[in-house]
Amino acid sequence: MTGIGLDRLSLNQATVKHLGLAEAVALCARHDIPAIGLWRDRVAETGLDSAVAAVRAAGLHVSSLCRGGFFTQADADGRAAARADNRAAVAEAAELGADTLVLVCGGLVPGSRDLGLARRMVADAIGDLVPVAQRLGVRLGIEALHPMFCADRCVIASLGEAADLALTFPADVVGVVVDTYHVWWDARLSAEIARAAGRIVSYQVCDWVLPLPADVLLGRGHLGDGEIDFGPVSAAVTAAGYDGYVEVEIFNAGVWAAPPDRTAAIVRERFGSVLGW
Amino acid sequence: MTGIGLDRLSLNQATVKHLGLAEAVALCARHDIPAIGLWRDRVAETGLDSAVAAVRAAGLHVSSLCRGGFFTQADADGRAAARADNRAAVAEAAELGADTLVLVCGGLVPGSRDLGLARRMVADAIGDLVPVAQRLGVRLGIEALHPMFCADRCVIASLGEAADLALTFPADVVGVVVDTYHVWWDARLSAEIARAAGRIVSYQVCDWVLPLPADVLLGRGHLGDGEIDFGPVSAAVTAAGYDGYVEVEIFNAGVWAAPPDRTAAIVRERFGSVLGW
Repeated sequence: MTGIGLDRLSLNQATVKHLGLAEAVALCARHDIPAIGLWRDRVAETGLDSAVAAVRAAGLHVSSLCRGGFFTQADADGRAAARADNRAAVAEAAELGADTLVLVCGGLVPGSRDLGLARRMVADAIGDLVPVAQRLGVRLGIEALHPMFCADRCVIASLGEAADLALTFPADVVGVVVDTYHVWWDARLSAEIARAAGRIVSYQVCDWVLPLPADVLLGRGHLGDGEIDFGPVSAAVTAAGYDGYVEVEIFNAGVWAAPPDRTAAIVRERFGSVLGW
Repeated sequence: MTGIGLDRLSLNQATVKHLGLAEAVALCARHDIPAIGLWRDRVAETGLDSAVAAVRAAGLHVSSLCRGGFFTQADADGRAAARADNRAAVAEAAELGADTLVLVCGGLVPGSRDLGLARRMVADAIGDLVPVAQRLGVRLGIEALHPMFCADRCVIASLGEAADLALTFPADVVGVVVDTYHVWWDARLSAEIARAAGRIVSYQVCDWVLPLPADVLLGRGHLGDGEIDFGPVSAAVTAAGYDGYVEVEIFNAGVWAAPPDRTAAIVRERFGSVLGW
């Protein structure tokens, strides 16, 4: 076959934001979706043990846990809290058997415009987390966010930068997340994906839909509804050796308002037609 | 002195969007601003000869003409029209004695998701324009726009990509525009500015203000009102040999609604306090 088969489809829970964990798990089972990306708030709401039991009972694989990160706190208390929270996230990812803990690293340090400082803090915080992750067998996934989120959410703003950072740590513990929405625009994307070979721990997909909505966090769409050419990105990720699950993760108020079964059906249909190139 | 002096200040006309050319010229004269960045619609409204006479009478230097580009038309007629329009823009820039004609190169080709195609069309169109610019002594400035505009306005989405493209043409004809708003997030920015030494034909400044407004085109602010650390960018541009005018270009509905004399006074004051580092 060519392309990516439906046996590699994972539904990121954020795509059906209004469902609790048990409902999202049941949705995946109903639609023959073999894996799920979980969010920590929904895991906490359910309870970790119940969440683990639910995904196991359904025979679902957990392709990612979202998310750790937000390392760039201004004060020592904030940094200590972030550190503790990230250690807890690693432990949760281990219990859930998640392929990766996704890290959204944080924006500029409050009160500072120093990008270099924020980036050094991210590197230091990941360094702190690595022994914990290594001990528990969890892989950390550094996610480059779109540069429009650089100031307030993630100073790691390109895949190349995420790869540079990941490559300073052991390959079995730190990798990168490739999310089409965040990196599709980059003229260096194919080269950077190739450079990240062996380090790609998650491939997330959704489309870039115009016009951007008032809240740019929510401008994502179903595969095929927007501007992204998924073929070359998928081919590069595949050539770099990634053969894990591919998560559909869509933040979109319209998608959230749709009936979840309808959303799951579209996710499945588009995955086949757009990624099975 | 250190930093960038007020003798290098240029007011881009877009900052006082509601003023006609003659009014904007008079504003610069009143506020001892020695240069102006002009927009073609306002030049056309005034008439090219009158525009040339107005800036000369006021002793103003024209630091840029905005803008050529939008090369990625789907059909032959559209491409021919863009080509004719860009030739006209070069001629206008020559008449005005503008330091550069700023090129906003265009987004994806309508009906296509092929980024490579759009980028090849941009390169081809600039190649077409180079002999015209060379003959008239005009320098073309390739502007990298922020990646959030990649799909609909400019597929050249990083300074490195703009530099790669510029470096395929003669240095006296094609350079790059460094606009802080579009490139500030880039971890490779200093390196790419250094690589563009001798090719920087315009340095434009404004700030990145949070939250982004509903229309992300208008999320710019006065220097110091946002998140950008101008010192390192200015130092890199200076180290790369750029000693031309520095244009303040702010797209912001609130700034446009303010009295222009107030805006000009803030522009001057912030230029001194933020760039005179």
